[in-house]
Amino acid sequence: MTMYVPAVILVRPQLGENIGAVARAMANFSLSELRMVAPRDGWPNSRAFEVSSGATHILEQARIFPDFAAATADCHQLYATTARPRDMEKRVVTPKEAASEMVGLSQRIALVFGPERTGLENSEIAQCDTIITIPTSPDFFSLNLAQSVIVVGYELWCARAPQMTDDRWQIADESSSPSVIRHPSSALATKADWHGLFGQLEQYLDEVNYYRVPEKKEVMWQNLQTMLMRGQWSAQELQSFRGLLRSLWERDRKKR
Amino acid sequence: MTMYVPAVILVRPQLGENIGAVARAMANFSLSELRMVAPRDGWPNSRAFEVSSGATHILEQARIFPDFAAATADCHQLYATTARPRDMEKRVVTPKEAASEMVGLSQRIALVFGPERTGLENSEIAQCDTIITIPTSPDFFSLNLAQSVIVVGYELWCARAPQMTDDRWQIADESSSPSVIRHPSSALATKADWHGLFGQLEQYLDEVNYYRVPEKKEVMWQNLQTMLMRGQWSAQELQSFRGLLRSLWERDRKKR
Repeated sequence: MTMYVPAVILVRPQLGENIGAVARAMANFSLSELRMVAPRDGWPNSRAFEVSSGATHILEQARIFPDFAAATADCHQLYATTARPRDMEKRVVTPKEAASEMVGLSQRIALVFGPERTGLENSEIAQCDTIITIPTSPDFFSLNLAQSVIVVGYELWCARAPQMTDDRWQIADESSSPSVIRHPSSALATKADWHGLFGQLEQYLDEVNYYRVPEKKEVMWQNLQTMLMRGQWSAQELQSFRGLLRSLWERDRKKR
Repeated sequence: MTMYVPAVILVRPQLGENIGAVARAMANFSLSELRMVAPRDGWPNSRAFEVSSGATHILEQARIFPDFAAATADCHQLYATTARPRDMEKRVVTPKEAASEMVGLSQRIALVFGPERTGLENSEIAQCDTIITIPTSPDFFSLNLAQSVIVVGYELWCARAPQMTDDRWQIADESSSPSVIRHPSSALATKADWHGLFGQLEQYLDEVNYYRVPEKKEVMWQNLQTMLMRGQWSAQELQSFRGLLRSLWERDRKKR
């Protein structure tokens, strides 16, 4: 089933900077369809292109509409992002909830954002099916236009990403350690590798009389093994560390 | 138990606009501690204040540091946000994963962001414990500085919000803390502790000519730092390891 990628509709946007920043954020999260209702300073707006950091394809293909009704005419579902829920009986969802809903819909969806200063009018919110409210600090809740697009776009991308096959998204060896990215060559050290390292280190430490108090040796040695193993070194890293120990160990021998 | 609110560290930020936008984003998501390493245009920067939309308390209390080591000295855990993972064996997590980890930690954490154009240097990333990579379209993955702060701040806020009884950072207990089991007394090593260890080790390795090929030194040294840091040693463990290195280093001197 093909998912329609939601359109972004900016209603009466004011600053070209913000339009450009919205385009950039859209490109970051693979949204491509931008619509605008009556941008204040007309269109095209050179400032928007300057700020877009190369997301010019989105700006070039942007479509301009005279009013809200025209811009939304072909949509099935409108999600309005506002700073707080108005006094209206609307569904209110978080960006995360909205994103997970949208991924399941094969309908034409639009994300609607109001003007920078005033936000959407109540009559416009009334046309929308769902309100997205971005959770923020109650003491400082004003997000600018592009920031709102970033958060919603980010959640939408995260909701879509697991369905993508592009290998840039693959995390190697996800079963054992979910968050560590490992290169294919760097297999984890085996217990035999560790055994080799510990044998080498134990010999060195005995020779330098590291454990001054013999009764403490057992506990100190266990702690040392524990802290070294905690890093889950690859076989290659473990060999590097053995080489390092050897270098420190042998340097004075060579000098003698 | 009180959770430390993560600090935001901007490393060599260039534009006052971006610093102001970062402060605004921090206020949106109730982050308050801003640190900067050598902002390009000096400090204070009037443009930052103009753009901050009233988040001036964050800018007024921002602290400036001469270098990365000084800015991170008191931190236990550093999360570096970069556009993509480098060729380094670091933990890589999504903003969502990072946020859920941080809520469980009662440690001093900082979120580290590099300069706008170049990003963090590899030597700086090597000092960080974890990389946060914001999922974006592979075709357009460049996020600006404030946008990265918004996404990470947003996820952090979402992770905190359900547990909050008021708008402060109180959490009930540490039981959700991830994988590593620690004794109560074993405070994690700070970055200043690590800095001390690395200074000692670097001196030893230079003296024994460990890096036979000088061009390889930088990468080898970064990999070495990365693998040692991965074990998340306590301050005490780190001191033990320094003692171990010293023992190996000094043994032949004593014999002579």
